Parts: sequence; structure tokens; C-alpha cells
Amino acid sequence: MHENEKDQLLSLINSIKPINKRRFYEIAECRLDILIKPKGSLGRLEEFVKDIIAITENDRPKIKEKYVCVFAGDHGVVKEGVSLFKQDVTAQMVRNFLSGGAAINAMSNSVGANVVVIDVGINADLDSLVGDNFINGKIGFGTNNIYEGRAMTYGDGIKSLLKGIEISSILKDKGADICATGDMGIANTTPSSAITCFYSKKSAKLVCGHGTGVSLKIIEKKIRIIQKAIKYNIQNGDDPIDVLSGIGGFEIGAIAGFILGCSIHRIPVVVDGFISCAGALIAININPDVLDYMFLGHLSKERGHKTTISLIKNKKPILDLSMRLGEGTGAVMAMKIIETAIDMYNNMATFDEANVFASKLNK
Amino acid sequence: MHENEKDQLLSLINSIKPINKRRFYEIAECRLDILIKPKGSLGRLEEFVKDIIAITENDRPKIKEKYVCVFAGDHGVVKEGVSLFKQDVTAQMVRNFLSGGAAINAMSNSVGANVVVIDVGINADLDSLVGDNFINGKIGFGTNNIYEGRAMTYGDGIKSLLKGIEISSILKDKGADICATGDMGIANTTPSSAITCFYSKKSAKLVCGHGTGVSLKIIEKKIRIIQKAIKYNIQNGDDPIDVLSGIGGFEIGAIAGFILGCSIHRIPVVVDGFISCAGALIAININPDVLDYMFLGHLSKERGHKTTISLIKNKKPILDLSMRLGEGTGAVMAMKIIETAIDMYNNMATFDEANVFASKLNK
Repeated sequence: MHENEKDQLLSLINSIKPINKRRFYEIAECRLDILIKPKGSLGRLEEFVKDIIAITENDRPKIKEKYVCVFAGDHGVVKEGVSLFKQDVTAQMVRNFLSGGAAINAMSNSVGANVVVIDVGINADLDSLVGDNFINGKIGFGTNNIYEGRAMTYGDGIKSLLKGIEISSILKDKGADICATGDMGIANTTPSSAITCFYSKKSAKLVCGHGTGVSLKIIEKKIRIIQKAIKYNIQNGDDPIDVLSGIGGFEIGAIAGFILGCSIHRIPVVVDGFISCAGALIAININPDVLDYMFLGHLSKERGHKTTISLIKNKKPILDLSMRLGEGTGAVMAMKIIETAIDMYNNMATFDEANVFASKLNK
Repeated sequence: MHENEKDQLLSLINSIKPINKRRFYEIAECRLDILIKPKGSLGRLEEFVKDIIAITENDRPKIKEKYVCVFAGDHGVVKEGVSLFKQDVTAQMVRNFLSGGAAINAMSNSVGANVVVIDVGINADLDSLVGDNFINGKIGFGTNNIYEGRAMTYGDGIKSLLKGIEISSILKDKGADICATGDMGIANTTPSSAITCFYSKKSAKLVCGHGTGVSLKIIEKKIRIIQKAIKYNIQNGDDPIDVLSGIGGFEIGAIAGFILGCSIHRIPVVVDGFISCAGALIAININPDVLDYMFLGHLSKERGHKTTISLIKNKKPILDLSMRLGEGTGAVMAMKIIETAIDMYNNMATFDEANVFASKLNK
């Protein structure tokens, strides 16, 4: 059965093309260098402009419609006591996202971004939830406990990736100019640490952190879980779908799929912190061309994040504010900075327009 | 004559009080810790909230009316060829600020901040300029060449500080919730480097950078100028007004005064990059309590900025985007991040409100 879906996935993935840096960076520079400022003086803002132009293939891109997609799922490993919070907090937080009281709501309102919440694997029946900004995309009622076996079937790994791609198509239809990833899932630092450990080949001791604030004893337990999960749950480490299914999570798979989908649709995608970057690692290992479409929103305070980022070649986080909440809270602020960069590019005057001619140069 | 003005300045400066961290941080924490998120998980955003509450002494502060003040002045040292741009670019850029085409305009529009431009020492007659957002506060037609002598008289040093304080009073009357500093002044990295060298006691070689993009040869010239200016232009290094008058600039003095004024009026002030931080060094040396009211907007790409910041104790820049333009461009983006932090604090639900009770904790 899942062979059909895998074919569908592979065909979608193969439609991702690297951006044409040579052509579009030059187009961007042509304008950036005649704006009334010393050349290159806006630093990374100018890099953001070049990337957005190359991603969108539009020399006057628009970054107004901003969306953050919060993918929510549960994790069987919560049974091992790896989180301070009970599993039903995942569903409760989703209700909070929909009623508008969570951090991601307040911060998205502040920067003018829309929040979309997607249930891809919450261990609760949320069929009664309705709302323009809620999508029921449930693949399962939480993953299996990765301390005892694989997180999900290979087929569900494929399904979670396809679900993420599907969401990107919905956002494209909504007219999104830029998207951000977000996550909600009690215990999801454990599978994210496992994915970071697996791809970095670093010991779990160096990667495991405090998550939402757990004790040293719990961290030691997390380390044992991750070591065992990596050892027994992965059958073919060269296949990122197998890695996802063995040690990942539904929302991590959907985030990976969403990054792939944004790359298919040429929508710039800002990846949030530790959990989202674990999704990015899966996506990059499926097709490294997604790197061209990705921005890293922020460096999280979660211990393993530096390691995760070191695996995402040549990408530097936009913000570093010691945050460790998830939900997409770092990424929404970074979207605003990218918007400001594009506003600068579109709305500044040129030297000619401003009558500050290059002939004013002193030499 | 300037004794009267000095008395006036000292009396204003003495009205600055340190913030009551103990009381207001606790008030802030009372609410921060019941919002639906793990304790402390919003990192520096939570620190910003605590500082804003302590500065404004308001447990539900508002950060909506945002102002960036661009102080403009000219520098006699431009005669030594330290800048790629001719001196009249300062006046032209001021016209650009008023016509809305500069980087600071585009970026302020993007984040909803107002731009105010103040001529404190441009070497051109700008009396004909009018506009709600322009203030004629001219103290002189550019400083003297610091390679040949003191930048300005001691009396003009006092005047530039008082002018900055006056601007803060105007902004208070306009209802500013938060302010940012910005600068415009061809050649102003030279006096700023001199101030950084003087207070850090580091060699000019370690501090001097490329400014708007000058060559190695020009940097060597800058180094000689700074060494000579520090040696001969300062009469009493313990007096920051003497340091300002000897090696500073009109806009640097006004920025220092503006920081002092914001502290007097309990208005949070976001300090921009290298030039603004040179102003901050003067302000801090006049009254270190201004530290309580200051945020550092960003780490500039300009070489000496790390040194300047190392002198501004316990303050870490909010952004690090390799920018080196000035005008307040880093600070306006940082103001938006502080606004987002306050929006989070004011608009998030509490655990009680969200029915995610602490009793859900797993232990």
C-alpha cells in the first residue's frame, strides 16, 4: 500500500530545484548597490533580500502574508517520564492556540503573522475542534514509545511527510509570501535529540538538554532512551524516512514535509528551534536542495541545538535570544526581520532618486 | 557663561535614579511565571519585559509609540580624507530622511516607528527645512578638525548634551513609549573610535575599522589622527564633557544627552551601533545609572564596536546581523523585538485562564 504513497512522495521531492543564485543574486545586487547606503552596509539583511529574490524568482518580492504552522503530535516515550508535563497538555495547548492565548498567538499578532495549527498525531480525539486556523491532519494517536520500539510504521513516516507537503499547498493557495514552522508535542525534545545524535554521531550525553525544565536524573534517562532507540529502531540509516519512522515523531515528519513542500512551491520557510531543526535534518537528508529555501529563525537555548545547526551547512540563525519554547516563537520574530529587509529593498530611494550621486565620492 | 548651563546640566543629571529592580522584577516575574509556557522559556524576551516594567514602573506597560531620533552633525576631521563621502552628504542624507527614502525610513515604516531628525551640527544652513519630524537644534557648523585641536569648546559640549536632553523632553510630550538613537555624520567613525580608544585604553590599531568602506591606507591615517587627538585634545580625562569636547562630535554629545534625558524621563532607550554607543560611553561616564534605561540594539560590523560594548557592562546586543549603516537601523528592529516581548507579556493567557493547571505537572 505505502509503495504508491512513496512513489507520490518521491515524485514531489524530485520537483525541488536548487535556486539560481548566480542569476538572481546579481539581479538583487543591481538594486541593493544603488540604494542610498554604503555598499553591503546592511549586512545580513542584504543576504536575506538576495535569498528571497532567488527563492521567489521575483525581483520585487512581497513579504506581507506571513504564516506560522504549528504542527502538533504526541510521543509514546512520555511514559518514561521524560517531560514535566502530562501528555494531555499537547491537546490543551492546541485549544489554547485556537483560543488565541498562547505565546505564539500573542507574538504572531505583534508581528502581523497568521497562526495555523495542524493536528498530525495528538493522542486525543479533537474532531470537535473547528476553526479557520485548525487543520485535522491526524495520522495516529501519538507515536509508540521509542524506548520499546519504532516510533511509527514506515508507511506512517511517509504519511507524515506527505501531510506536511499538503499543508504547504494549502498555504500556497492562501497566498502565503513566507512561512514559519512551529511545533507542539509533550516529550518531543527526546526524539529531536535522538535525530540530532543520529546525524551528528555525537554521544547523547553531549546533545541532551533540559527540555521544558527537567532534572539531571531525567536527562540521564533521556540519554539511555536515545542510545537504545538509535541502536535498535533504525533499520537503514541511509534512508531518512526510516530514521524518522524509527526515532522521530508525527509533527517532526510533518515539519520535514512542510519544508520540502515550501521548497516545491518556492515559498521561503523560516525554521524555528530545536524540534523544527530536527525536522529540517530529515528534510535535508531527503533532498539537500531544501537548504536553498530555508532560513534558521533562531538559536535555541536547548542544549543540542548548536549541534543540530552545525549539521545544517552554511546556515546561521537570525536571532539568538536564549528562547526554548517552540511553537514557532523564534521563527515568527525572524519572519518580521526578513519582511523588514524586503521593505528596505523595495522602499529605499536610489542614489539617483536621492540626488546623492556617486560623483560625490571623495576620490 | 557656560557655568549656568553646567549647573543646569548637573541638576538634570542628578535627577536620574537607578531602577528598583528588586521590586519591579518581582512584579514582572509574578505574571511571567503564570503565563502558559515553561518558566523562563522565553529567555531574553522575559528579561526585556522585566526591564521595561522596572523602567516605566508600570506592571502593564505599553510599547506602541516608537520613535527613532537621528542626530546629525559634521566633523572637521573629514578634511583628512577619513571618509569615502564628502561632507555635504550629511546634509543630503538629512533631506533624504525627511523625504522618506533612506534605510531608516523604510525600516521604521516596516516596524511602525516614527523617525525624528535633529540637526545638531551640520555644516550647512538647513533653516529652510521644515517638517513635523525635523528639529533644528544646531550648535555649530561642524566640529573642528580633531587632528588639529579640540572638536569643540567645553561650552558647546555642554550645549550638545543639553540639546539631547531637550529632545527627550519633546519625545516624552509626544507620548513616546520607547525611543531609539540614530546618527548621521560623514566621518563620525573617527571620533567614535577615538572615544572607544580613550575609554578602553586599547590601541587605535585594534579599534579602527573600515567605516563606510575605506582603504587600509585611510585606516592608518585614522589611527594617527586618533592617537594625536587623544594625546593633545583631552585636558581632564576624568570629565566626560571634556572628553566629548576634545575628541567627540555634536551628534555624539546629543546622543549622550538623549540617553541621559530618556533616563530622566524613564523612557526605555535602544542604543544603535558604533556611533551611538560612543555617545552611550559619554553618558555612562556622566552617570552610570543610565545603564538601567538602556538596551543595546545590535552588534555592528564596525570593528571597534565589540570593544565599545565591552565597556558597557552587562549589556548584550539584541541583534547581530553584520550591519554597519548607522541611522538607527539596528535599533529600530530591536525596538520591534522589545514591543513583541511586551505584547507577549500583556496578551498571553495564564495557566488558570487556559485551564492548563500546574496540577497537570507529572511529579
